[in-house]
Amino acid sequence: MTNYRLRCISCEKEYVPQRSLYYCQECGPLMGTLEVIYDYDNIKIGRDFSKTASITQFSDLLPVKFQTDMDSFVGGTPLIRLKNLFGSDEIMIKFDGVSMSGSYKDRASIIAINKAIEYGFDTIFCASTGNAASSLAILSANTKLRTYIFVPSTIPKGKLAQLVAAGAIVLPLIGTYDEAFDISMDIGLKKGWYCRNSAINPYLLEGKKTGAYEIIVQNDYKVPDFCFVSVGDGTVVSSLFKGFMEFNRLGLTDRMPKIIGVQAEGASTLKRVFENGKPYLPVEEKVHTIADSISVGNPRDVIKACQYMEKYDGEFISVSDEEILKGIMTLGSTTGVFSEPAGATAFAGYMKMMRNRRISPEQSVCLVITGNGLKDIHAVENAVNVNNYKKEEIYNMLEGV
Amino acid sequence: MTNYRLRCISCEKEYVPQRSLYYCQECGPLMGTLEVIYDYDNIKIGRDFSKTASITQFSDLLPVKFQTDMDSFVGGTPLIRLKNLFGSDEIMIKFDGVSMSGSYKDRASIIAINKAIEYGFDTIFCASTGNAASSLAILSANTKLRTYIFVPSTIPKGKLAQLVAAGAIVLPLIGTYDEAFDISMDIGLKKGWYCRNSAINPYLLEGKKTGAYEIIVQNDYKVPDFCFVSVGDGTVVSSLFKGFMEFNRLGLTDRMPKIIGVQAEGASTLKRVFENGKPYLPVEEKVHTIADSISVGNPRDVIKACQYMEKYDGEFISVSDEEILKGIMTLGSTTGVFSEPAGATAFAGYMKMMRNRRISPEQSVCLVITGNGLKDIHAVENAVNVNNYKKEEIYNMLEGV
Repeated sequence: MTNYRLRCISCEKEYVPQRSLYYCQECGPLMGTLEVIYDYDNIKIGRDFSKTASITQFSDLLPVKFQTDMDSFVGGTPLIRLKNLFGSDEIMIKFDGVSMSGSYKDRASIIAINKAIEYGFDTIFCASTGNAASSLAILSANTKLRTYIFVPSTIPKGKLAQLVAAGAIVLPLIGTYDEAFDISMDIGLKKGWYCRNSAINPYLLEGKKTGAYEIIVQNDYKVPDFCFVSVGDGTVVSSLFKGFMEFNRLGLTDRMPKIIGVQAEGASTLKRVFENGKPYLPVEEKVHTIADSISVGNPRDVIKACQYMEKYDGEFISVSDEEILKGIMTLGSTTGVFSEPAGATAFAGYMKMMRNRRISPEQSVCLVITGNGLKDIHAVENAVNVNNYKKEEIYNMLEGV
Repeated sequence: MTNYRLRCISCEKEYVPQRSLYYCQECGPLMGTLEVIYDYDNIKIGRDFSKTASITQFSDLLPVKFQTDMDSFVGGTPLIRLKNLFGSDEIMIKFDGVSMSGSYKDRASIIAINKAIEYGFDTIFCASTGNAASSLAILSANTKLRTYIFVPSTIPKGKLAQLVAAGAIVLPLIGTYDEAFDISMDIGLKKGWYCRNSAINPYLLEGKKTGAYEIIVQNDYKVPDFCFVSVGDGTVVSSLFKGFMEFNRLGLTDRMPKIIGVQAEGASTLKRVFENGKPYLPVEEKVHTIADSISVGNPRDVIKACQYMEKYDGEFISVSDEEILKGIMTLGSTTGVFSEPAGATAFAGYMKMMRNRRISPEQSVCLVITGNGLKDIHAVENAVNVNNYKKEEIYNMLEGV
């Protein structure tokens, strides 16, 4: 753990960290997201990180003292580097589907769990479309924390199975993720439980930024030209900006990548807010997409995500559910990476920009694939309905092969 | 890659490796399994392996030249070390559910794929209960190999989804795994395809043994007193014996662990064969268990598994489907490790031996959990049928908490 303070992204007021301080007391929860700030001039690190170690190797850049048995099993996920695919000379796939709970959210949950322990909480809660919840449940199972999970009842079966098996107290709401979020905040904060909600808890982003660190380390400190990631609440894309920015600020890299935040067409609120220009204000819309992890109509990290996008020349784009579904199969059959719909959204965005000749073959591309396809096989159900055969039928079919 | 030769486990005749040599030409496929033999006296390795690196770090002990883009993403799975659980002072969980395809079988498939490439095959095939197949499909997706998969049509949906998304040619047979195995051998060998079938291809075990290596390395070269693993065909348990044996033979450890092979009561053929004593002969039985990965009535690695069990004082035990299902939930809620039924079978076996006071608290235990629970959520469907709630119901329920 290193020294840090908290700063409001709207009014820039600084705060000393406190037990239950989640957002700027003057700007409120939606406008007053706090960001963790370090004295970069006093952090001395070199290009000597491991390509396979867990996120604990980044302790000098994290606001937490690691003290659970699961810390060493978060991060260190594959960066698969492939040549000559989809028209690109080089493509990198950062695959967080290979992780304890099968999603990128492990990086955030482990930080929240350690913070809850540091501050002496006995209960932790979160609202989630599913992945944040299952990572929290799985990584906290072996701690003394009780875990309350608020999810929409439409949560995919795989994610629900993880939650139940991990012994969390699960409360599936007949309603949307956004409603589950509001209920969780109302109940959880009143009860004095520790809050692991995206964009509210300032420490989650710090865990998520380690994905950017790892991309750089695993790519031998070379910065990819493009980095694609799916966007729901806006926290993961913000975290990537911060991670790349910090490594650049610390002299480990020479530039920033161009980050493309990819949304589902039916849930592209952040894209619309950004394109409408300043002031970036939280809004609420009705949304629908097959990509449950990014089916967010009231994104919680609007301001930070838009500020980063503007400052570092990023871009939001959107893709259709059809492109996402096709993306799962194309990505899987070409690379072996089996992604849940939200993960494949990043890939579909890349394919769209390739079609539109926005990327040239020699520009390097990194796709952040945030979740394992096993979490939501319902999404690919039509593809999975293959025929069953009798013995003789198999012999006949293969006769001419 | 290091020098090696092949030796029949029945008649001990030695062979020089050849393109399509899978078993002893004198003893046949069931009795004449070939084992890979090295000149251990000429292998010089020290205690300097990485705790997180992939299986490529064990090249000096493997019969293969790694040359695919996925080699670096096999192995290096977590060894989670926990204190004071279930009555044991120390328990280790080797969790291969965190891997590219979510099962232990990645270790074997990557070896088969590299061998197929080395020998110039254009097609590879396997029969599988599901995990071997999905690992083969996923790890070969980015190679030039065509992949044919023979599975029983009862394959869990998650595993089938992986296969289809990875672009393999899938042939679900209305029949058992054992029947799919026989058909695959008949067709695949006639066609001249490369065979990635358990216990037939002698190189698969070499990949699987790396799990034992990693347990030792990740536990600082200390040998656990007990090692539990589920048993179907008998290949994984044999591979663990060989891995532990080799590290011991090379002077990296001072002894062997006691290995317990755990079978489902409804599919405990190997246990019965072993307990009936020599000669250990292949048999065929009708089997039924919820643990699909080990639902094997005609185990293919009978002789080798029994020979190892006898030589190193191992033991077969069996547990009921009810114990397996309970094991999934107990393991998950206590440790966060979400296991498919076959994986939890190892845990259920450990719990049974604890109940029977066969293990004392100070004896260290390693559980090899071979597959991710997301692969077969149907198995825990009853547990996953949680109620959905309206907003007011959630408020009411939590009022008194």
